Amino acid sequence: MTPTVLALAGGVGGAKLAVGLAKVLPPERLTIVVNTGDDEVFHGLHVSPDLDTMMYALAGLTNTVTGWGVAGDTFNGLALLRRYGADTWFNLGDKDLATHIRRTQLLREGGTLSQATESLCRSLGILHRVVPMSDAALRTVVETGEGALAFQDYFVKHRCEPVAKAVRFEDGGGRDVGSTGAVGPSPAFLGALDEASVLVYCPSNPFLSIAPVLALKGVRERVRSFQGPRVAVSPIVGREALRGPAAKLLAELGYEVSCRGVAEQYAGLCDVFVIDEVDRDQARAVEALGMRVVVAPTVMISDVDKERLARRILDMVGGANSEDGGVRTA
Amino acid sequence: MTPTVLALAGGVGGAKLAVGLAKVLPPERLTIVVNTGDDEVFHGLHVSPDLDTMMYALAGLTNTVTGWGVAGDTFNGLALLRRYGADTWFNLGDKDLATHIRRTQLLREGGTLSQATESLCRSLGILHRVVPMSDAALRTVVETGEGALAFQDYFVKHRCEPVAKAVRFEDGGGRDVGSTGAVGPSPAFLGALDEASVLVYCPSNPFLSIAPVLALKGVRERVRSFQGPRVAVSPIVGREALRGPAAKLLAELGYEVSCRGVAEQYAGLCDVFVIDEVDRDQARAVEALGMRVVVAPTVMISDVDKERLARRILDMVGGANSEDGGVRTA
Repeated sequence: MTPTVLALAGGVGGAKLAVGLAKVLPPERLTIVVNTGDDEVFHGLHVSPDLDTMMYALAGLTNTVTGWGVAGDTFNGLALLRRYGADTWFNLGDKDLATHIRRTQLLREGGTLSQATESLCRSLGILHRVVPMSDAALRTVVETGEGALAFQDYFVKHRCEPVAKAVRFEDGGGRDVGSTGAVGPSPAFLGALDEASVLVYCPSNPFLSIAPVLALKGVRERVRSFQGPRVAVSPIVGREALRGPAAKLLAELGYEVSCRGVAEQYAGLCDVFVIDEVDRDQARAVEALGMRVVVAPTVMISDVDKERLARRILDMVGGANSEDGGVRTA
Repeated sequence: MTPTVLALAGGVGGAKLAVGLAKVLPPERLTIVVNTGDDEVFHGLHVSPDLDTMMYALAGLTNTVTGWGVAGDTFNGLALLRRYGADTWFNLGDKDLATHIRRTQLLREGGTLSQATESLCRSLGILHRVVPMSDAALRTVVETGEGALAFQDYFVKHRCEPVAKAVRFEDGGGRDVGSTGAVGPSPAFLGALDEASVLVYCPSNPFLSIAPVLALKGVRERVRSFQGPRVAVSPIVGREALRGPAAKLLAELGYEVSCRGVAEQYAGLCDVFVIDEVDRDQARAVEALGMRVVVAPTVMISDVDKERLARRILDMVGGANSEDGGVRTA
């Protein structure tokens, strides 16, 4: 039977697996919940970088050279914004700006971020459900040696260079949500938590992409008691991050820079941990965290790679209820 | 002595003379007050077409092929906005969108339209003062055989095709300001009315570009009792509009399609009326309206043409207080 999948994802790496899942699953069987802890307002426009990366990837619009933005985009608007004295360290192409203009307009007209996202996705011909993790603001803040940095300040402006001491989350009013858990998940995310038979953590940064999702009110508990198999794919391969600061953050926050270090973040929240073939020697260490380990090719370059990994995950959860629990190899 | 000039202008034609005046006058001697009756919100962004035309012209950015927008602009953002289901009948280039994004941001941060305009102009290196006629909304509405049309609906979407019955003005709440005069001029416009020694009506559409300016609270009275010479340049040459619907509107609203028909709109508000050499035969008819007539080449193609006409106007007002009152030829 085709499972109903809830995929949690951040940006580029997450979008790759999501594309694979979308190739394998019919639209009604997949909900992709995307991190919005990176959202930021630039030039008065609401920018949702991870939602955009996901949307462009699913619509086949991704700029595969840079990894962000729209293929073949121009930067004429940004050049004039710079001349107007605007801060333009965050690169926004002309087509990309259209996305932010439209989203901002839909939000100002009273729509939720979920509704705006649905409208944009439908226009781009995306059939699978792409959902922001929340309709309210939950912002990722990186505490560094140079002070607290808003996510894009840390990630883009400072190119992840400051040493991270902690990652925390604030609500729209700048209050830490660690203690209050005041920001709730979006309705479709809640619905998917109820209905899905499989939960997939895409190979996204555990601290910056998945942790914000888990920091939403009640989500960690719901994931803890999730009714079906929970599968995570490691974004660390061969002790290096495929992209972005995952390896650097693991080290700075005191974890082993390895797929085991990632798996530690999902202890109690994950049943099956997918590691790359080059990390086969770490299978036992991950299993010691209480997860079943699956070894598979996890580096996704082509669409064939994406689809193969997605299919591998879905095949595997067919047997996830069995009790063999051993290391499987693709 | 160098006069202090207050120029009233609309879009393309007005911007041409304004460029000429700016070439001849030092910055502290010229205030250009621009019609904002055409302003409209597109995609949630505040668009001020006449201010933009003026700004781009003074900054040397004008797309001289189309007459609107920025030279060499691309339309990638608009293409994606169209795909998102947005109404895109109003052409907005990628650079042009940057202007609207920045203006909207400055307004949302609490700035007035005057302040936003000053910021944009300063960034583009414009030294002369460009001022919106008002910081509040006064919107031009064209009553037509097909009903009341907002200005851009009439001008761009319907390409001025519906037969006009009347032009009227509404405040931001949709109330007709004809009776209340509730919308006041911008502070710099008021200041210029006090300080200027010469008032120039640029060759703009009298109904669509100049009438909104005169419809602002107290402006018509202030212009009526203006302390210096008031000079108008006809936008109708050889019984045709150089650009836009001026000729069509004159006919539909019951006036002669001629520079005399234009002059009629300025009766009691103008001392010197500049007509083109091809309209020399109408000098007497215009004089009958109580204005002195000056005949000069008024068609401005090159910057030399613009500067020559500006210089002609300024030379002429040096003698505007003399009582010769006759027809002068350049």
